[in-house]
Amino acid sequence: MVSKNQIKLVKSLHQKKYRNRHNLFVAEGIKVVQELVNSDFKVNSLFSTDPEINLGTTDTIEIVAEAELKKMSALTSPNNILGVFEIPQTQKPNFDGWIVVLDDIRDPGNLGTIIRLCDWFGIEHLVCSSNTVDCYNPKTLQATMGSISRVNIGYTDLQTFLQNAPVNVFGAFMEGGSVYKKDMPNSGILVMGNEANGVSKEVEAMVTQKISIPQFGKSTTESLNVATATAILLNEIRRN
Amino acid sequence: MVSKNQIKLVKSLHQKKYRNRHNLFVAEGIKVVQELVNSDFKVNSLFSTDPEINLGTTDTIEIVAEAELKKMSALTSPNNILGVFEIPQTQKPNFDGWIVVLDDIRDPGNLGTIIRLCDWFGIEHLVCSSNTVDCYNPKTLQATMGSISRVNIGYTDLQTFLQNAPVNVFGAFMEGGSVYKKDMPNSGILVMGNEANGVSKEVEAMVTQKISIPQFGKSTTESLNVATATAILLNEIRRN
Repeated sequence: MVSKNQIKLVKSLHQKKYRNRHNLFVAEGIKVVQELVNSDFKVNSLFSTDPEINLGTTDTIEIVAEAELKKMSALTSPNNILGVFEIPQTQKPNFDGWIVVLDDIRDPGNLGTIIRLCDWFGIEHLVCSSNTVDCYNPKTLQATMGSISRVNIGYTDLQTFLQNAPVNVFGAFMEGGSVYKKDMPNSGILVMGNEANGVSKEVEAMVTQKISIPQFGKSTTESLNVATATAILLNEIRRN
Repeated sequence: MVSKNQIKLVKSLHQKKYRNRHNLFVAEGIKVVQELVNSDFKVNSLFSTDPEINLGTTDTIEIVAEAELKKMSALTSPNNILGVFEIPQTQKPNFDGWIVVLDDIRDPGNLGTIIRLCDWFGIEHLVCSSNTVDCYNPKTLQATMGSISRVNIGYTDLQTFLQNAPVNVFGAFMEGGSVYKKDMPNSGILVMGNEANGVSKEVEAMVTQKISIPQFGKSTTESLNVATATAILLNEIRRN
């Protein structure tokens, strides 16, 4: 039996304030939970409605009633598994490879998609501005499909971080030079900006090269969604 | 004053069944409504809570109370404008340029993002399998950011359509050849498959060239989200 206090704790973790207080976060669904269980993330507790569930782990899985899981879940239709994990320590990014920097990304789905893209393209470090949405937000975690276990994510003041970076800082700007015409180096920083306003003035001042994705359609006012733009730019960086 | 029957009609259009019955759909928010008003789409009616609103059109805008707009809206926090438009006739795709084909895309947000990408990359025709989510779904429309006014979208039986296509049919498959090594022609078809299961067996049989996006990360089990994969492949097609 899961206690009322346990349920209350798990539920509180849907809010950033309590995640930071307890240094814990919640993941739901077999795909994400399995990836986290099999990674360096430390398990705090696991709950499932399925007595037969097999995660290939020695961690104890507490079997709970559907109604109990529903109370703990952030989803309208909960999956049959929920895991509580410790928030890992942030690792200092190294500048040997590419680093993605996010300036004030607000949409949890966009952040999740970008984490998944970093995993695909072998980007080990993602550095976010302090006002970027929390990567342990339930919607973000869902969109990562478990790839959060393979990308180091940190939150920091971007001006300070970029000031001390010993590599070129590329930034996505509508008015930037075509990425097709740039020779991308083997290491560098790629800055992506806010969904509505792009890169902030303060961060723009730290960008050494402004790049853009050429447009082929008729419209001249449109922009691309930040996650799809990141997809295209990471592909451009790697294809070289 | 908007009548009870009008409110009822608009509300019913959030469902595909009623959209097809009345040949009408609803768009919300200044960005999308403005794009549609200034396109070839035919306005049925426009409602706004803002007496000062200016869409740069001669169409009548009926001023309604917030409570009335809320009743008509599909959103939890409605915008200040809602438009009802006629569903246009599907235009026959021509094979001079590239055509994107979607096989059983289920997520409205993914479809909306792909429509926006088609607009960006100058893809005029998007052909969807009959079981792909409806492009006039409120969530899809929101994600298109108005670009639906610049892409011709049709729903059809893909086997019949692809059988008669006089161009190469490229399909995205995990096991396909690297897109970096292909010379993409000036015209062709790009097939993207279902979020969970990829391209169906029946459609796979029509694909003449299987392509994939190389992976650089450590994981070997992951795939990319279908919208981000479409972004990368359309960029590859155009950059040549």
